Amino acid sequence: MSTPRFKKDKEIIAEYESQVKEIRAQLVEQQKCLDQQTEMRVQLLQDLQDFFRKKAEIEMEYSRNLEKLAERFMAKTRSTKDHQQYKKDQNLLSPVNCWYLLLNQVRRESKDHATLSDIYLNNVIMRFMQISEDSTRLLKKSKEIAFQLQEDLMKVLNELYTVMKTYHMYHSESISAESKLKEAEKQEEKQIGRGDPVFSIRMEDKYQRRSSVKKIEKMKEKRQAKYSENKLKSIKARNEYLLTLEATNSSVFKYYIHDLSDLIDCCDLGYHASLNRALRTYLSAEYNLETSRHEGLDIIENAVDSLDPRSDRQRFMEMYPTAFCPPAKFEFQPHMGDEVCHVSVQPPVNGELILRFQQLQSRLATLKIENEEIKKTSEATLTTIQDMVTIEDYDVSECFHHSRSTESVKSTVSETYLSKPSIAKRRANQQETEQFYFMKFREFLEGSNLISKLQAKHDLLKRTLGEGHRADYMTTSRGRRNSHTRHQVDSLRRLWGAVLLALPVLH
Amino acid sequence: MSTPRFKKDKEIIAEYESQVKEIRAQLVEQQKCLDQQTEMRVQLLQDLQDFFRKKAEIEMEYSRNLEKLAERFMAKTRSTKDHQQYKKDQNLLSPVNCWYLLLNQVRRESKDHATLSDIYLNNVIMRFMQISEDSTRLLKKSKEIAFQLQEDLMKVLNELYTVMKTYHMYHSESISAESKLKEAEKQEEKQIGRGDPVFSIRMEDKYQRRSSVKKIEKMKEKRQAKYSENKLKSIKARNEYLLTLEATNSSVFKYYIHDLSDLIDCCDLGYHASLNRALRTYLSAEYNLETSRHEGLDIIENAVDSLDPRSDRQRFMEMYPTAFCPPAKFEFQPHMGDEVCHVSVQPPVNGELILRFQQLQSRLATLKIENEEIKKTSEATLTTIQDMVTIEDYDVSECFHHSRSTESVKSTVSETYLSKPSIAKRRANQQETEQFYFMKFREFLEGSNLISKLQAKHDLLKRTLGEGHRADYMTTSRGRRNSHTRHQVDSLRRLWGAVLLALPVLH
Repeated sequence: MSTPRFKKDKEIIAEYESQVKEIRAQLVEQQKCLDQQTEMRVQLLQDLQDFFRKKAEIEMEYSRNLEKLAERFMAKTRSTKDHQQYKKDQNLLSPVNCWYLLLNQVRRESKDHATLSDIYLNNVIMRFMQISEDSTRLLKKSKEIAFQLQEDLMKVLNELYTVMKTYHMYHSESISAESKLKEAEKQEEKQIGRGDPVFSIRMEDKYQRRSSVKKIEKMKEKRQAKYSENKLKSIKARNEYLLTLEATNSSVFKYYIHDLSDLIDCCDLGYHASLNRALRTYLSAEYNLETSRHEGLDIIENAVDSLDPRSDRQRFMEMYPTAFCPPAKFEFQPHMGDEVCHVSVQPPVNGELILRFQQLQSRLATLKIENEEIKKTSEATLTTIQDMVTIEDYDVSECFHHSRSTESVKSTVSETYLSKPSIAKRRANQQETEQFYFMKFREFLEGSNLISKLQAKHDLLKRTLGEGHRADYMTTSRGRRNSHTRHQVDSLRRLWGAVLLALPVLH
Repeated sequence: MSTPRFKKDKEIIAEYESQVKEIRAQLVEQQKCLDQQTEMRVQLLQDLQDFFRKKAEIEMEYSRNLEKLAERFMAKTRSTKDHQQYKKDQNLLSPVNCWYLLLNQVRRESKDHATLSDIYLNNVIMRFMQISEDSTRLLKKSKEIAFQLQEDLMKVLNELYTVMKTYHMYHSESISAESKLKEAEKQEEKQIGRGDPVFSIRMEDKYQRRSSVKKIEKMKEKRQAKYSENKLKSIKARNEYLLTLEATNSSVFKYYIHDLSDLIDCCDLGYHASLNRALRTYLSAEYNLETSRHEGLDIIENAVDSLDPRSDRQRFMEMYPTAFCPPAKFEFQPHMGDEVCHVSVQPPVNGELILRFQQLQSRLATLKIENEEIKKTSEATLTTIQDMVTIEDYDVSECFHHSRSTESVKSTVSETYLSKPSIAKRRANQQETEQFYFMKFREFLEGSNLISKLQAKHDLLKRTLGEGHRADYMTTSRGRRNSHTRHQVDSLRRLWGAVLLALPVLH
């Protein structure tokens, strides 16, 4: 069998040194990485500060513009009659109420964005600054520890080097001691080999040989002792080397697997938590702005829900009583003390009146049927119009879905309302229907006006003919009648408001 | 009894005319009111258009500023190493991820506010314009009807006037006819009164008297007839007057109570409904903007929730493998073919080794107890720090509650974070604790490093002494041992990543 080739001391040392060199290089690299990580953090935190400083400006400008906008229109309305109304009682026409709430909303948005800007500047940015400080400080402290740990590690490696060298030394010595011993043993054998002489022996020769044998034995013993001593030393050195080797590997393992991550954790100490809080402050601000905005919009939505033509009409008529309060009834004015104040039905006029009553009756019947038809048509038309004006075409969510994609915004919006080709046609159609409605409604009014007049006469005749042949000459009855009429007028005027309210929107 | 004083014709006419004059004035007033109402509407709708046009500008400017802001930082980051990483795999350090999402959010806000502006300009304002057109058109049509109705009403009033006059005329006539008749009757009585003569009657006298009696009777009859005729005419006139009076009052009542509100409803036709839709379009846009914004914030919140030191640490170490990958184990290098490669425990060294093993054992016991103490302290300190850095001090809702009142914003914000007098003290306190923690942690590291070294030696000795008196000279065993070590190293390198991940944050 071929004996394996052995590494020379130099090779071993060289290998060891290159291994250590590698490690040292890594240690330097690690320090660099820690520095770099912190640099990146500080840079990120700087960017965040710049970002929020700039955004604070933008929010503040936005807030100012909104404030200006609200102010401009508030000032405009403050002078108006409505506004006096508004100050006096909150009882406004429902569209005007919406308008004021719209302005209030802009104000609220203005205030909230100012608040947002303020929180960025005086809270969020502050936090990022402090996190940046902390990172730098922590890096410094962590690097002190890192430095310490690396020094210890190098110590350990040096120790390994020393014990390895010692092992080499003692091992070589024990090898040389061994070979010297072997050599001594050979010489001894040679001496013994020259043993029994056959012819002519001289006395002095005999003496000389004995003394040299003694010498060789002495030397052999000495070399034996030396060898054992060196052998033991080299065993101990090897043991020490093996133990140190174990310790070294364990230290290296510990450093790379545990200590390094601990070091990184030291740099991180509180970084993520503080960043979390800073960003949550931002989120809290944004979410609160949103909530406030939402509350405002809900208020407007309520006002929009309660846009009501009927109550607005009543408010409108109440605003101008001189124009809309019904006048007093026209009273019968007896002429020159004429004491009869009701229709007389005594002969010969009674026949004529009865005939007239019957004509009125049949005329009314026909008129009512005709007008009922017209009314039906106009009401149907009105319903059509109301369906047209209450079509739910105001949902614009799609624009915002689109706006999340990369598509341009414009294109999407147009879809929602304008580009609906129907829009123009819809309006034309609506106006046509409107036209027709007004025509029908006018017919209906004429009809109903005629009916109301004839009806009044018809009813009066019916009453009086019913009362039949009562004596014309009756002061008391006049008294009664007058008071009766007066009562009607008063109650009519009293009930006016109530009546208005009770009226349906369009008959 | 005293007879009541009768109104003269003139008085009655005067009263009637003033009453009609009043009504006519009201009719004019009503037309004015309708005009005024529409003017107010058109003005309101104009204000709404101006308002939204201006707000659209503000929103667009806001959007542009946000876009610029996002772009500025996006450009900055696009170059960085992180960003390459980002493009490659989405696997970013958690804070960098938050930073990118923050920029995305600004972009989204920018887009959404642009959309908002666009909807204002191309949808909402359009609607208000159309409502304004409609109002004007409807007013025109309604006024036509109003005019018609008012004319009819005036006709009715004129008719009343006429019949009243007729009544007056015929009534006066019948009165005068009556008085003439009475006069004739008186004369007749006078004739009959000159009756029976007592002395000397002449023939021609007798003839003369008879003929005059006849004349008087004839006249009386004529006047009787005239009276009855006029009486009947006046009765009919009064009846006509009473019937027309009834019709008039009914027409007036109808006009004021029904027709007027119908007219106002005609002006309102679709006004409230269209306004409602216009405002709902605005609301829909605002609400959608809000939803989009909210979604964006939620994404950021998730990223903030997943700010994680541990996974960041692993990512960091993986980013620099040359720096953090553990080196190969140091191997035993046999010197000059030394065939023993493990600790020799044969006499005479064994005694010494056993003694050393025992010393290591007891030393380790003490060290471990001491270090455990230090560890406890440092861990406790760490917990304190972690409590400090995770304090929930980021809720800023109060700022927004305040911002709704009239109070200035500044004052309120300061309360939330800065003006907390503790803030400076808190930080000082935190740094002290940090200081102490690092001290303790350093002690702990030193201790544990020593322990790991001694432990390694201890374990090796234990193993070898356990193996006891095995022959030193054993090639096979060496072979086994070496392969064993090699295996360890390989697996260790393989497991590295896993190990790192498994590590707790700070031991």
